[in-house]
Amino acid sequence: MPRLADLTPSEPMSKDVYRKRARELRRELLHAQLDLRDTPSNALLLVEGVDGGGKAETVQLFSDWMDPRWIRAHAFDAPSTEESERPDFWRYWRRLPARGRIAVFLSAWYSQVLIERVEGQSDAVFEGALARIRRFERMLVDDGMLIFKLWLHLDTESQARRFRELEADPLNRWRVTRRDWENWARSDRFAHAAQEILDATDTEKCPWQAVEASDDRRRAIEAGDLLLAALRRQIVSQGGVARPLESESERDSLDDRVERDAFAGKVRKSSYRDSLASLQSRLNELHRRARDAGTPLIGVFEGRDAAGKGGAIRRVVYALDVRRVDVVRIGPPTEEELLHHYLWRFWRRLPRAGYVTLFDRSWYGRVLAERVEDLAQEHEWRRAYEEINDFEQQLVDHGAVVVKIWLEIDREEQRSRFEERMRVPHKRWKLTEDDRRNRRLWDAYEPAIAEMLERTSTRAAPWVVIPANDKRYARLAVLEAFVAAIEAHGLGSEKGFELQTSTG
Amino acid sequence: MPRLADLTPSEPMSKDVYRKRARELRRELLHAQLDLRDTPSNALLLVEGVDGGGKAETVQLFSDWMDPRWIRAHAFDAPSTEESERPDFWRYWRRLPARGRIAVFLSAWYSQVLIERVEGQSDAVFEGALARIRRFERMLVDDGMLIFKLWLHLDTESQARRFRELEADPLNRWRVTRRDWENWARSDRFAHAAQEILDATDTEKCPWQAVEASDDRRRAIEAGDLLLAALRRQIVSQGGVARPLESESERDSLDDRVERDAFAGKVRKSSYRDSLASLQSRLNELHRRARDAGTPLIGVFEGRDAAGKGGAIRRVVYALDVRRVDVVRIGPPTEEELLHHYLWRFWRRLPRAGYVTLFDRSWYGRVLAERVEDLAQEHEWRRAYEEINDFEQQLVDHGAVVVKIWLEIDREEQRSRFEERMRVPHKRWKLTEDDRRNRRLWDAYEPAIAEMLERTSTRAAPWVVIPANDKRYARLAVLEAFVAAIEAHGLGSEKGFELQTSTG
Repeated sequence: MPRLADLTPSEPMSKDVYRKRARELRRELLHAQLDLRDTPSNALLLVEGVDGGGKAETVQLFSDWMDPRWIRAHAFDAPSTEESERPDFWRYWRRLPARGRIAVFLSAWYSQVLIERVEGQSDAVFEGALARIRRFERMLVDDGMLIFKLWLHLDTESQARRFRELEADPLNRWRVTRRDWENWARSDRFAHAAQEILDATDTEKCPWQAVEASDDRRRAIEAGDLLLAALRRQIVSQGGVARPLESESERDSLDDRVERDAFAGKVRKSSYRDSLASLQSRLNELHRRARDAGTPLIGVFEGRDAAGKGGAIRRVVYALDVRRVDVVRIGPPTEEELLHHYLWRFWRRLPRAGYVTLFDRSWYGRVLAERVEDLAQEHEWRRAYEEINDFEQQLVDHGAVVVKIWLEIDREEQRSRFEERMRVPHKRWKLTEDDRRNRRLWDAYEPAIAEMLERTSTRAAPWVVIPANDKRYARLAVLEAFVAAIEAHGLGSEKGFELQTSTG
Repeated sequence: MPRLADLTPSEPMSKDVYRKRARELRRELLHAQLDLRDTPSNALLLVEGVDGGGKAETVQLFSDWMDPRWIRAHAFDAPSTEESERPDFWRYWRRLPARGRIAVFLSAWYSQVLIERVEGQSDAVFEGALARIRRFERMLVDDGMLIFKLWLHLDTESQARRFRELEADPLNRWRVTRRDWENWARSDRFAHAAQEILDATDTEKCPWQAVEASDDRRRAIEAGDLLLAALRRQIVSQGGVARPLESESERDSLDDRVERDAFAGKVRKSSYRDSLASLQSRLNELHRRARDAGTPLIGVFEGRDAAGKGGAIRRVVYALDVRRVDVVRIGPPTEEELLHHYLWRFWRRLPRAGYVTLFDRSWYGRVLAERVEDLAQEHEWRRAYEEINDFEQQLVDHGAVVVKIWLEIDREEQRSRFEERMRVPHKRWKLTEDDRRNRRLWDAYEPAIAEMLERTSTRAAPWVVIPANDKRYARLAVLEAFVAAIEAHGLGSEKGFELQTSTG
């Protein structure tokens, strides 16, 4: 890696160039994320660098570009009581990604060691901390993990300019603290310590990548390119295949996931884009109010296979602060979960105050799949309606916003989506035996769905049934449902709340 | 159940009668605990009642009487931040026992509702809380759980006498607070609210059991008898067999687990008993100092099959406050654990400040079973020595006391213990195919054990190798090792620390 001092501001990237390359990158990163899932590997993305260098924006971007079900962002601040009662690295261990998954860590161990060094930590302690980091990273890499380490650099002048830009903007003034300027005054010491750290931890197995961050667009594209290359190397080294995008249909299909809709619909593309942007902006604003009010937000996505749950979830996540969102995909229960009441695994995943959990399928499996496929006995699923209503009542009583979405497609639409998947080699993984069986079970599901909607649409937690044959329409309606639910909670009435700017 | 007001103090139980019945009860409860493991059921023991009624002692007793690997006690105090950010019952859900396991809850939802009622909660809110409890308990019972609800009663006069007895004892004076006397002055209100609660929640599926608690011995035996009966009913109702103790050899074998040693040894029984009691008392004292100092204690028990790990762990747990102890039995990793680094599952179970985790087998499986049985590749187990040393160094750096016990038996002794198990029908469950295979693998384990002891006995975390052919000797040596390790941590030097009294 180059010396940080050699990284100097270059030409800004034009909006057009950015758009084109960002679109390609998204497609390829999604692709690589899927390929990684076929290997026994996992990936940890460490985003570090100077304040004002766009760390948070980069974390948000990586999350937006990939499938939120398999990527999770974590920001580290002062340790919680529970964390400080364990060894330093406990809080990192508990958030390490499982195989097939990606975690993004913002301000993890390097931020800690950097601050301590600047505050005058002795050589011996500093060297000890670096050695521990090297051992820790090597151990994870030896176990098959990709550790992608990204350093976002700004020279002193660019950093000051960035701070002043933020201060000039009434909506972002709060982002620049006195502490930032104090640190800026010591930026030589920071730069020196940063270079020491990078030199000492730039190992063969865990190399650093550095990006000059003064231009937002260029930074985003360079960071994405480096990540893509690292993912591809990892996939190959783990015996997987990092496939280039070959056919047109494949491109189209992935395009669908990144924005363009492969399915004809009543909502026109141009109006869709505008409505999407405006709803996401509104949802972002409400999400920040919910965060500040300490309100947990719980989203439930249900619908038949291929109803578009994943795509709808992505549009919701895009509007949220990914450091506060957990997308939980519910499949068959694990061994451990089977040893407990069926609701136990959902209780475990409830969000903290101000956080969000989105369930891609949920406890309703008890009265849908488990009922239809005879995995629960009749008296078990019969009593589940009341148990579920009681559970949701407790969530609402606690002050949570609960949004339950049913995406409704018809048989014809499901068939055409399945056929679409068959045509795209890369999407075949989604078309499992289960899907085919579920198609056969279409009729059997009908009364189960009807009874579920009837018996669990309560005042506290009503179902929002959304016609989903038109994907664009459905996604907008999902966003509207979230906006309406948070507003109904009394969080929508204040005026003049600042908008979040996305510099990525 | 009788009205609480009708429960009046009866004749104290003599020490001799208590000893005899306690011994039988232990044997039978252990037996029932094993039988329960053969059913798909789990058990939740709720211990509630008046202050001074011996709730904590009863929780300790239930834990002491049963196998600590399958029973876990939890005491509920003010909710932690993390808990208060979720719905009320989240903290109970996260501690519910898995199937085959028993949890003991001290001061759970009934304590909460009782205090609130006495403080003047309205009828409507009170009724709502009781209805929620009934629904919650019914839901768990419908799922196959036994909920055993025990109320320990003292009349006003007996309660005052108990408080005065404690106050008269310099070692226990601290246990009686001004709050206790204030509540005592309102004991009519407490009694009234308690009766209301019991009446409203004494359901067919979750009945209350009440015990008059003025005599410690009688209370212990009556509580144990009620628990035993409840466990047996549950086992039968779940399709299991609650077997009476039939043969002499079975009695002897279980006796071994409760105290008497079936294996001849050099340590004579009488001197063993004295030494055991004195070491346990010393360990208890040190454990309380470690608790107050916020020092975590981590015990690792390794040894060949039938080396006596379970028995040694029980003797250690007996000396500890069971509300602060977690015994973790390490078997094959679960699906979820397999998706992570092999150390991940141990990091997850690290104790908080002042708590204890005892690992029955541990991370050393990587360089023992996984090495010998080819479950890890050579380069994987080779690098594990350093990884493990590094892990333990982090624990010690954090301030934890780490005690690593290797129980060493010879081939002849193992054979005779396996044969012993074969003779006892009830113990056959322990003699699995694995055991037989491990016997064949005796020689293959030899170099793995030697290399492990050699390479991971560090200054920070040395191995304590204990000759274990004589079970009594081994158990005393294990207790000595724990005492020595905590003393070496600087916690043993203070004088005049009060001894914990065991009133159970």
